[in-house]
Amino acid sequence: MKTFDIIPPDEAIRHDLIRKIDNLAKPRGSLGRLEEIALRVGLIQQSLSPVLRAPENILFAGDHGILSEGVSPTPREVTWQQTLHFTHGAGTGIGFLCRQHGFRLRVVDAGVDFDFPPDSGVIDRKVRRGTSNFLTGPAMTPRELDRCLEAGAGIVDDAAAGGCNIVSFGEMGAGNTSPSALWMHCLAGVPLPECIGAGSGLDDAGVAHKLDVLTRAAASFERDGWRGFDGTADAAHLVMARFGGFEMAMAVGGMLRAAERGMVILVDGFIMTACMLAASRLHPAVLHYAIFAHMGDERGHRRLLDELGVDPILSLGLRLGEGSGAVCAYPIVESAVRMIGEMESFADSNVTKYF
Amino acid sequence: MKTFDIIPPDEAIRHDLIRKIDNLAKPRGSLGRLEEIALRVGLIQQSLSPVLRAPENILFAGDHGILSEGVSPTPREVTWQQTLHFTHGAGTGIGFLCRQHGFRLRVVDAGVDFDFPPDSGVIDRKVRRGTSNFLTGPAMTPRELDRCLEAGAGIVDDAAAGGCNIVSFGEMGAGNTSPSALWMHCLAGVPLPECIGAGSGLDDAGVAHKLDVLTRAAASFERDGWRGFDGTADAAHLVMARFGGFEMAMAVGGMLRAAERGMVILVDGFIMTACMLAASRLHPAVLHYAIFAHMGDERGHRRLLDELGVDPILSLGLRLGEGSGAVCAYPIVESAVRMIGEMESFADSNVTKYF
Repeated sequence: MKTFDIIPPDEAIRHDLIRKIDNLAKPRGSLGRLEEIALRVGLIQQSLSPVLRAPENILFAGDHGILSEGVSPTPREVTWQQTLHFTHGAGTGIGFLCRQHGFRLRVVDAGVDFDFPPDSGVIDRKVRRGTSNFLTGPAMTPRELDRCLEAGAGIVDDAAAGGCNIVSFGEMGAGNTSPSALWMHCLAGVPLPECIGAGSGLDDAGVAHKLDVLTRAAASFERDGWRGFDGTADAAHLVMARFGGFEMAMAVGGMLRAAERGMVILVDGFIMTACMLAASRLHPAVLHYAIFAHMGDERGHRRLLDELGVDPILSLGLRLGEGSGAVCAYPIVESAVRMIGEMESFADSNVTKYF
Repeated sequence: MKTFDIIPPDEAIRHDLIRKIDNLAKPRGSLGRLEEIALRVGLIQQSLSPVLRAPENILFAGDHGILSEGVSPTPREVTWQQTLHFTHGAGTGIGFLCRQHGFRLRVVDAGVDFDFPPDSGVIDRKVRRGTSNFLTGPAMTPRELDRCLEAGAGIVDDAAAGGCNIVSFGEMGAGNTSPSALWMHCLAGVPLPECIGAGSGLDDAGVAHKLDVLTRAAASFERDGWRGFDGTADAAHLVMARFGGFEMAMAVGGMLRAAERGMVILVDGFIMTACMLAASRLHPAVLHYAIFAHMGDERGHRRLLDELGVDPILSLGLRLGEGSGAVCAYPIVESAVRMIGEMESFADSNVTKYF
């Protein structure tokens, strides 16, 4: 299976970063989370004057066999329709956000049940036309999982080749809160009911049905020998292949490669947080490169963020996916980088140092 | 006393705004607070395709007689030093934020204890070199309050003349969380201890001393006849003149004029929220034009926001003032406006309508 070589940022620079931030002409700590984000980006880039370059949102799309069990109100064809829609024109949610913040949007077919025309602008990394229904067996083979990790890493290489040093990941995949809930359940040990929410718009009966389906899926995984996460990469791979979407596995590969390259990773909502969880179960050091952007409305997301010990920048009630929460948070990260790069110190500015 | 003529937005357009937002190609409600902000801006501008033009941050600066009672660790000279610093160069907190988001920054001397050189770039609306100590008497005269309201309104007229239709207000004034706490106490009826916090960096003993000073100031106001807010403009004016900073009173005038002109008002942290409270006690309709940008770290701010029944866009732990929280939130408002202006509907995009 594809492995990655992720080195945590050298802590030697931390002291100088903190000193620089504390000497900017403002009461100490008065820029709150901007100071914390500046420290993190400075550590990642190993620089007292970090810069953000050529931001990209990489959007992976895929279909899910489990959708046929009625776990989502979103029809399967919405996956390909929206995927196509992302590439031509600005009319999508992620489209206007990328335009606003100068993000390049890469749209990747990880496994959509549709043949995109060659000139569609969708990048072809299709593994298959949707995962298998994981109710009684694996969503994908180990070989397919490996292919996803490789493909996700390769797309990030392409972004980096264009100068990108900050990347967010998004997804489109009708039904993909279900695999996310199961990754969370299996990899973080959270009881399944706490991992499940309304997705794109289930009512209470729909949520109950979703819980029933996913409970049966988890039970079948246990019948096949699953005994809980033991901290090994093999176990993480097993969970990822059992339930995961192709788009999710590619995002994991992308996150791991981004960390390997020392890029800043903006983490979107519930599904991308589940992917970051999986990535961190393979390589815990990936978390040093992550900035959690948005707490979405999906129940379970807050729980998962607590599990990871993180508090996202924004809480705007978004539940669109596509990377929208991550891209929305970009200007805050940019503010943090401008703060450390552009603000004067007390000494420079002839302002009496105050608290 | 200066009065304003604020008309609430015509609600007739609300239905069409909601219909437009609900038909954008996304699950209904999935853009969370962006949808709510788009609705508000659409109502303010009476348009299904609102636009933001020439944003400005108007920063009023003033000194406070109460500072001599030791209510803040910030030395008085920081007010003029920072005020001057705002105008030349980019090195301040509000400076880099304004540059990042394309804001014009107007810096207004409302009553700083310093003579700024004529070429300093500071707009001269100085009432006096700082308010009187309000421990035993009014901070300013009724005539001075009126002058502040007029001056604040005039500065907003200047901004509007330049095409500005969205404005934030900021402040610089060593000690100005103290008058803000007293406005909150007197105009919202909140017990004084719940209105008081650490300001720019008091320790626990400092906070206790501040509470003691402000308790005595409130008691002296009561000895002079104050019996609690009765809902009249006269009573609001009395409170404003008793405790208020010149910079705060000018911000109130600016907010009221901005609402009169149908501009969007981005409300910054604790001090500007206290100003919006005062503005709303004079003209409740001003709140229709307000978007609360940031919940700061100052204790009492959350309480005051609850009092006003609002939930700010951001919560970044900023406590810098200057309008920094408001300007930080601007890209989120811009996202909302782009959403309603640039996203396609389900009909336009040939995507199956989903929930």
